[in-house]
Amino acid sequence: MPRAESSPPKEVVTAALLVIGEEILSGRTKDKNIGYIAEYLTALGIDLREVRLVGDEEGSIVEALNALRQRYTYVFTTGGIGPTHDDITADCVAKAFGVPIDVDPRALAILQERMRTTGVEMNEARLRMTRIPKGAELVENKVSAAPGFWIGNVIVMAGVPTIMQAMLDEVAPKLKTGVRILSQTLRADAREGDIGTQLGEIAKANPEVAIGSYPFFDPQHGPNTNVVLRARDAQKLALAARAVEDMLQRVRGAQSGR
Amino acid sequence: MPRAESSPPKEVVTAALLVIGEEILSGRTKDKNIGYIAEYLTALGIDLREVRLVGDEEGSIVEALNALRQRYTYVFTTGGIGPTHDDITADCVAKAFGVPIDVDPRALAILQERMRTTGVEMNEARLRMTRIPKGAELVENKVSAAPGFWIGNVIVMAGVPTIMQAMLDEVAPKLKTGVRILSQTLRADAREGDIGTQLGEIAKANPEVAIGSYPFFDPQHGPNTNVVLRARDAQKLALAARAVEDMLQRVRGAQSGR
Repeated sequence: MPRAESSPPKEVVTAALLVIGEEILSGRTKDKNIGYIAEYLTALGIDLREVRLVGDEEGSIVEALNALRQRYTYVFTTGGIGPTHDDITADCVAKAFGVPIDVDPRALAILQERMRTTGVEMNEARLRMTRIPKGAELVENKVSAAPGFWIGNVIVMAGVPTIMQAMLDEVAPKLKTGVRILSQTLRADAREGDIGTQLGEIAKANPEVAIGSYPFFDPQHGPNTNVVLRARDAQKLALAARAVEDMLQRVRGAQSGR
Repeated sequence: MPRAESSPPKEVVTAALLVIGEEILSGRTKDKNIGYIAEYLTALGIDLREVRLVGDEEGSIVEALNALRQRYTYVFTTGGIGPTHDDITADCVAKAFGVPIDVDPRALAILQERMRTTGVEMNEARLRMTRIPKGAELVENKVSAAPGFWIGNVIVMAGVPTIMQAMLDEVAPKLKTGVRILSQTLRADAREGDIGTQLGEIAKANPEVAIGSYPFFDPQHGPNTNVVLRARDAQKLALAARAVEDMLQRVRGAQSGR
């Protein structure tokens, strides 16, 4: 009996990322989190399906949160949880979920302990960072103490890449994960336009394999293409990859015979 | 008579960016267009208000296009206009606008001319790149010939950064532009948490100046903060910057006196 039948198929786990920050929309700061999170989730078997970037504006943040959290297994957010007036993410999450928000005793204890050891003063601004929507779990911040949080299917993280990365490591073991997507990259040694028609036919014949085509310029040999195949099933992936390899050989053979 | 009163105030011009590409959501390719376009539009006086990234999936692309084009002055898209089966942007734009799409004689002429000079063959795949929604203007591609297009308030560009940049240069002179946003960055020489409360008060007193606060770590002097002020009015910007500078001096004075 094939092994695949002995355990129920794992569900597809999806995610969206909401990047919150005026500074990225103005071009002043270049985002470093999207690519990191995309790779990280893919490695876990979680499908990142959508990313949105919005400014520090309540209406936009609440609307995006509500649209995304209904659609995907998880919504990750980055940015807007610091001590200043433009850090409004926690309040927006509370509003989206319709729950109250106030100073959280657990978050307060963490910050007070940190301040005791560093000698930094507690004040109104820092107290902002202890405001957590009711019902949320804290996400530990091993870098600078002020925690992120997790409510419903929304995971709220800092925008500073090192802190965001530490928070992601913290939540990763608790995430549902789907079947890992397997992928294979084939270097075509052909122009994208010379293989497009045939590739489309192979894609149609292999509906469970996502086939992407990415042109690039090789300074030594000129225009070239990477063909990337992605699938959950190893056998289906191998079959489609074989079909692409055979096709590429035919195309290259025809070209060298010209 | 002040010069500002002699001409009517310019309108606020807004934009959204829709990045189309599975390869970015999977983390395989790192996006290089968002930051470039954000800076470019800011320099033109166009407010980039929102960015969305979606995969090569018709439903998601059409829905995002329709949501964004109703909300902003311009919608820019990148990606999905190549010769392969996964390049579906042009068809999605036609669907969003409810117009037919077919081989465009102008685009066909451009590609045929290119192929005549390069010796590359026309085929079904390359013909895909001449499919343009009815009513669209072409956007010239000085890098690799296959054009982008502009329909309604949607501007469709390639995903390859060099080509996208050439297309943006092509459309820029034709865009409505708003009043340039002026900005000023002040290095706080203070921790974000030490200036947050006061900064919030200044922000409240200067509603037409957007004040952002961005912590960073200075390897020599430890935690520090950049305060960025942005406004359309130079005088209002200067007033708010003065208030921030005075506040920073008071905070630093209090700290050194401890």
